[in-house]
Amino acid sequence: MAFPLSPSTPLRLKPYSTLRLLSLCSNSFSKSRPFPPSAAPRRPFHPSAAPRRRCFCTAITAALRSGEAIETKKSELGDPPRGEFGGRVGEFTKRLKISEIKGSPDEGLGLVGQTLTVVGWVRTLRAQSSVTFIEVNDGSCLSNMQCVMDSDAEGYDQVESGLVSTGASIWIQGILVASQGSKQKVELKVKKIMLVGKSDPSYPIQKKRVSREFLRTKAHLRPRTNTFGAVARVRNALAYATHKFFQENGFVWVSSPIITASDCEGAGEQFCVTTLIPSSGETTATPIDAIPKTENGLIDWSQDFFGKPAFLTVSGQLNAETYATALSDVYTFGPTFRAENSNTARHLAEFWMIEPELAFADLDDDMACAAAYLQYVVRHVLENCKEDMEFFNTWIEKGIIDRLTDVVNKDFVQLTYTDAVELLVKSRKKFEFPVKWGCDLQSEHERYITEQVFHGCPVIIRDYPKDIKAFYMRQNDDGRTVAAMDMLVPRVGELIGGSQREERLEYLEARLDDLKLNKDSYWWYLDLRRYGSVPHAGFGLGFERLVQFATGIENIRDAIPFPRTPGSSEF
Amino acid sequence: MAFPLSPSTPLRLKPYSTLRLLSLCSNSFSKSRPFPPSAAPRRPFHPSAAPRRRCFCTAITAALRSGEAIETKKSELGDPPRGEFGGRVGEFTKRLKISEIKGSPDEGLGLVGQTLTVVGWVRTLRAQSSVTFIEVNDGSCLSNMQCVMDSDAEGYDQVESGLVSTGASIWIQGILVASQGSKQKVELKVKKIMLVGKSDPSYPIQKKRVSREFLRTKAHLRPRTNTFGAVARVRNALAYATHKFFQENGFVWVSSPIITASDCEGAGEQFCVTTLIPSSGETTATPIDAIPKTENGLIDWSQDFFGKPAFLTVSGQLNAETYATALSDVYTFGPTFRAENSNTARHLAEFWMIEPELAFADLDDDMACAAAYLQYVVRHVLENCKEDMEFFNTWIEKGIIDRLTDVVNKDFVQLTYTDAVELLVKSRKKFEFPVKWGCDLQSEHERYITEQVFHGCPVIIRDYPKDIKAFYMRQNDDGRTVAAMDMLVPRVGELIGGSQREERLEYLEARLDDLKLNKDSYWWYLDLRRYGSVPHAGFGLGFERLVQFATGIENIRDAIPFPRTPGSSEF
Repeated sequence: MAFPLSPSTPLRLKPYSTLRLLSLCSNSFSKSRPFPPSAAPRRPFHPSAAPRRRCFCTAITAALRSGEAIETKKSELGDPPRGEFGGRVGEFTKRLKISEIKGSPDEGLGLVGQTLTVVGWVRTLRAQSSVTFIEVNDGSCLSNMQCVMDSDAEGYDQVESGLVSTGASIWIQGILVASQGSKQKVELKVKKIMLVGKSDPSYPIQKKRVSREFLRTKAHLRPRTNTFGAVARVRNALAYATHKFFQENGFVWVSSPIITASDCEGAGEQFCVTTLIPSSGETTATPIDAIPKTENGLIDWSQDFFGKPAFLTVSGQLNAETYATALSDVYTFGPTFRAENSNTARHLAEFWMIEPELAFADLDDDMACAAAYLQYVVRHVLENCKEDMEFFNTWIEKGIIDRLTDVVNKDFVQLTYTDAVELLVKSRKKFEFPVKWGCDLQSEHERYITEQVFHGCPVIIRDYPKDIKAFYMRQNDDGRTVAAMDMLVPRVGELIGGSQREERLEYLEARLDDLKLNKDSYWWYLDLRRYGSVPHAGFGLGFERLVQFATGIENIRDAIPFPRTPGSSEF
Repeated sequence: MAFPLSPSTPLRLKPYSTLRLLSLCSNSFSKSRPFPPSAAPRRPFHPSAAPRRRCFCTAITAALRSGEAIETKKSELGDPPRGEFGGRVGEFTKRLKISEIKGSPDEGLGLVGQTLTVVGWVRTLRAQSSVTFIEVNDGSCLSNMQCVMDSDAEGYDQVESGLVSTGASIWIQGILVASQGSKQKVELKVKKIMLVGKSDPSYPIQKKRVSREFLRTKAHLRPRTNTFGAVARVRNALAYATHKFFQENGFVWVSSPIITASDCEGAGEQFCVTTLIPSSGETTATPIDAIPKTENGLIDWSQDFFGKPAFLTVSGQLNAETYATALSDVYTFGPTFRAENSNTARHLAEFWMIEPELAFADLDDDMACAAAYLQYVVRHVLENCKEDMEFFNTWIEKGIIDRLTDVVNKDFVQLTYTDAVELLVKSRKKFEFPVKWGCDLQSEHERYITEQVFHGCPVIIRDYPKDIKAFYMRQNDDGRTVAAMDMLVPRVGELIGGSQREERLEYLEARLDDLKLNKDSYWWYLDLRRYGSVPHAGFGLGFERLVQFATGIENIRDAIPFPRTPGSSEF
C-alpha cells in the first residue's frame, strides 16, 4: 500500500462534510516506489495483516474501505507552470474543532441534526447498560464533546475490547443531537468510531486528580489536563492581545538579542554562553583540560565562539531604546534569563518579557501606556476565554473574574514612593521589615498598599530613591529620586516596572561613574544621547507573572510550558 | 523646579490638537520634594539658567512658557478608591505620527489647513535664499515630513545657529499645506520649531551613502536609515501577520524552551549554557581553576545551575509536538541557535524560528498549511507596507513586488525528491556537485528547479531519502524515503522545511536505534507515541530568511536588528 502522496487526499477533515482520510501507514515496508505519485495503487484493506495493537491507522484505513467518498480538491486558480513532473499543492482547510461546535452563543444547538466528525483524545469513558458515554477533548476548548454510543455503532468492538481507553486518540462520526444531560446543550450520537492511537495502561493522567507537583514531572502530557489546557489557551490569548495592543497603537515589534556581551543592568546573575566546553550531546564526561587556556592559566576567551565572554540577556531594554529613538515606539517580546538560585513560586531562570519603549514620552505617558496595556489584555481574555476563566473562577481562584473585571473598569491609582512610605509609617502596622525612606518596598508593604489602602485597585508607585534603582533611570529634579514606576496588582504584587530613561548625556555619564560602571562598554547606549536624544520611557513586564495574574495559578512553574529552574532543564 | 508629577500633563501630543508638554528637566538639582505632587509649583522659564547646548528640554519648556494651553485629562470613570494620597493614572493617547498624516489614500490632502505638531529626527536641511527645507522622519513610515520655514518662524534662531542639523531631534508645529514639490502631496509650513536634542557633528549617518558593512558596526543607529527603517517595519509586519495567520486558524502559540538539556536533532553544534564559569560582567580574566572539577579532572556538572550540561535550543519542534498532541494545532515563534562557524550571508548564530505543528495531519496538510501561510504573510506585507516595498523595488531588488505578487497568486508546485533527481539528471546540465539519488540537493540544484524548470514558482520537494533527513520524520512505505518536504523559493532557496512525524512507536524506536541515539533521553518524546498517538506534521521557517525573501536584502545580518555571528556579539 502506498503512502498517500497525492495532494487530492488531505488528512484534514472538511467541516460538516464527508470523511476524507487515507491510510497513513502500512505495517510492512513496501518496496514499490510510488511513482508517479497520483497513480500509486491503493492497496485493499486486510485486517489480519494490520494488527490493531501496533498500527493505529488501521482504523482509518477501514473508514476508507467502508466506501466514504474522497473528494478531489480543485483549485480555483489556473495551472502553475510546470514541467513533465510536479503537481499542485492543495488548499489549506481548517479542521472542524470542538470549540467551533460548542463555542457558538447557542452552544451548538444550531448544528443539531448535522453529521459531524470529531477527532481528539478520550478523557473518560462510562459504559452503562445500553449506552456508552465517551468524553472527547481536542484541546481547542475546555469542553469535551460528549459522545453517546450504543452497540450498533460501527467500530463498537474497539470500545468493547477496551482499546478505547482514557488517553487514546479517536475519530468519531455521528449526528449532533440536543443533550439530555444538564452539563451540555448538545452531544454526538455516534454512528462510527475508530481508534487512532491507543493509550498504554500506564497513562499517568487518569481521571483521579493528580497534584501539580506530579504534573511538572510530566510536562509533556500535562497540557492534556483541564488546568494546563486552560492555562495554555489563556497564555496564548494574552500573547496575541499583547501584539494586538501594540500593533494597533503603532508600535513596532523588535527582537532584541538573546546572546549578548553586555550586561544591561550591571546586575550579574547571568548565564554564560560558550563553545569552549566541547559539546557533543553527551558532555557529561568533559575533561577540564579540554578548555582552552592561556599561559597564565586563564580561560582563553579569544578561542570562544564570539571571541570574548557572552551571556544570555537579562533584558532587551537598552537595545529597544536604540530602535525607539529611530522608529518612535517599539516593543520587544522575547525570552530573558536570570541565573539566580531562587527556588520560589515566583522565579524562573528563563521567562518571557514584554518591553515597550516610547519615544517623546515621559513617565506619565509610560504609566498611562502600562495601564492601558494591562486593561486591554485582561479585557481580551475576559471576552475571548470565557469558559477557561469560569474554570479558573471555580477551581483555581474564587472571585478571579471579579478581580479582573475591576482591573478593566477601575482607574489605576498613582502615588509617589515618598507618599507610600508615609502611608506605611502612618499605618502603625507591624511589618516584618520596618519601613523608612530609602528602603526597598517588600511584598508585605506592597500588599498592604494595594489590598488595604486601595482595596484591590492596581497601584503605581513612582519616583523611587535613585540608590535602589538602575543607572539608566531619569533623575528627578529633587536629586534623590528617579522617574521610575512599579505597578502593583493584587495577588501577584509587582507586575510591571518601568521608568523614564535618562536622556541627558552628562547625567547618564555621571551616574555610570557613580556606580563604577565601565562607560566604554556603554558607548552605543551613550551615542543615543549624543545624536538627537529624546525624552523616552518604557516598562518591562514578566509574561509569566501576567499569566499568573490572569489565571490565578499560584506557582509560576505552571504558567510556562517547560519551566527552567535550578536543577531543572528537563524536556 | 519640580519634575512634572501630575497625571494631567503627559508628554504625548494629542493628535490634531494643542501642545501638551511640560518641562522634562531642569539644570540644577532642586532639593524641594514635590509633595503633594499635584500642588508642585511650576517654575517660570529662565533662558539664561538653561543653556541650550546641555539641556535639550529647554525648548520644550519654552513652548510651555509661550502660553500653550494645558488640558487636564478627565476620566469618564468614577473615582477609584483611595486614601489620603494617590492620584489617577492618565489615559494613554496615541501620538500623531507622520504615517498617519501621509499614509492616508489622499496622502494627507484631507488634512490641509490644519495645525499639526510633528516630532522626529532631521534627515536633511536645505537653506535656500528665503526659505529653509527640513526633512523630518519619525520612523513611523519611510516618508519624511517636508517642513518649510522662513525666518519669521518662532525658533528660527536655532536653525540659523546650526543647532538643527542632520540627526538632531526636533519638535515642529505648523500648518499643513499642499506641496509645490513633486515628491509629496503635502508639507508643513512651520510656525514654530524647537530643538529637542542636538546631534554631535560626529553623527555617522550623514546624507552621503554609507555601506551596509559600515552600518553593521553602527547597529544602534542604522534603523535611522531608509533601508533599515524599512526592513524593521517589514519585519514587524511579517511577525504580526504570522501571529494573525495562525490565530485566525485556531493555532495556539506555545513558547518552547530556550535552554534545554536535550538536543533535538542529535545535530551537535550547540552553545553550552553554564554558570560554572564565574560571571561577573568582567569575566575576561577567569582562571581555569575556578571551574569546579571532579577528582578525575572532569568538569563537575553537578555543580552547574541545572545540575547537568545544558544548551541553547536548536529547534522547539519536539516540544511543540507535546502541545500539538494535546491542543491539536500549535506554533512556536522564538529564537533558536546554531554554534556553527559559518561566516556566510545566509547564516546567523541566533535567529528566530516559526514552527507550527498540526495534529491529525499528514504531509499534504503540512504543505498546504506552509503554502497558505507564506501567501498570507506576503499578501499582508504587499498590502500594508506599500511604501517600503516600493523602496525595496527601486533600491534593493528590482522586480521584487512582481516576484512576491506571483507567490501570492500562483499555485505552488510539488514534486518528489525522486522526480527532482530525475529532472536534474535529464537536464544534462553540468552541476558543480553531480546529482544522484541519495545525495543532498545543493543550492545550484534547487535554483535550477525553481528558476529554470518552474519559472520562479515556489516548489515543494517531498519524500526525501531517509538517510539525509532527521530521525523523527515519518517513514514512507517504500522503506527508503521519509515524508519530508522542503519549500524552495526564488532567490532565497530553501525557506521552509517540514515533515510528517513518525507517530508509530516501533518505527521511531527502530530509527533511534539505527542512528545510535540514546532512547532514554527521548523518553518523553516516545511517550507521545505511547499514549494516544496521532498522525501529525509540522514545519520550520527561519524568520530572517523570510525577511530576506520579502525585502530582497542580500545579507541575513541586515535582516535582524543585532546579528550574532562568529566573533560578533556586540550591542
